[in-house]
Amino acid sequence: MNGQALTILLVEDNPDHAVLVMRSLGDFKVANRILHVEDGQAALDYLSGNGPYADRMTYPLPNLILLDLRLPKIDGLEVLREIKANAGLKPIPVVVLTTSDAEQDLTKAYEFGANSFLTKPIDFLEFTSLMRDLGFYWLAWNKQPW
Amino acid sequence: MNGQALTILLVEDNPDHAVLVMRSLGDFKVANRILHVEDGQAALDYLSGNGPYADRMTYPLPNLILLDLRLPKIDGLEVLREIKANAGLKPIPVVVLTTSDAEQDLTKAYEFGANSFLTKPIDFLEFTSLMRDLGFYWLAWNKQPW
Repeated sequence: MNGQALTILLVEDNPDHAVLVMRSLGDFKVANRILHVEDGQAALDYLSGNGPYADRMTYPLPNLILLDLRLPKIDGLEVLREIKANAGLKPIPVVVLTTSDAEQDLTKAYEFGANSFLTKPIDFLEFTSLMRDLGFYWLAWNKQPW
Repeated sequence: MNGQALTILLVEDNPDHAVLVMRSLGDFKVANRILHVEDGQAALDYLSGNGPYADRMTYPLPNLILLDLRLPKIDGLEVLREIKANAGLKPIPVVVLTTSDAEQDLTKAYEFGANSFLTKPIDFLEFTSLMRDLGFYWLAWNKQPW
């Protein structure tokens, strides 16, 4: 398993969902850092190191991106497409985490190169259980691109 | 979580590792079907429905591919590259499962579009623990492309 602290970029406009994700992953035993942005434009600015995110010491490229699909300004599918079309960003695992299970979203997400697609469980305990398993899988077992 | 039985394509030339993966995943509660091929050419033949794999009822497209890298005939990285360059196969999640943790393999695998990269633990209990977590994540939580 990996030992180092990892940076997770959470792209989520629903404040309740963001708190739930951050609390669940914050309980994970590895001391990770979760950075939260609320819309698609901010996600792309962060990843490109634009504007307020220019300092890579403070805002490093993440080891994992958790991406909601329904986002203000730029849609999550477009954010995903831009990440996977950029050779420097493509290696970062992107896990789509959405309330939608529309087949069109699922198809598009895999077509654009999503590493994984998860739907948010409505049940609170199931949500925290998913976050625990997601944390174990991506932060402990999966080998990071850097 | 998903309820239907899923097909897993295991591409692995080491018979000991193949048995270990199949036993560990076979214990998983969902009644899945694991199909095993031993080299890269057979993997591509299976996925293309060529030769002995022409009958899609018997040899359906898998919901998950577990891919070793060091393979006879065609290397695992080349198999991965061909899968992800084929629009019909690209949506299938490919988890690289290898003894190698060479940085070059890791970089190439993500560049070619691997969904996830795992190194096989040497310790038996850790190996079965990884298989259990992998099974839960990809077969129960992850939404399948079809």
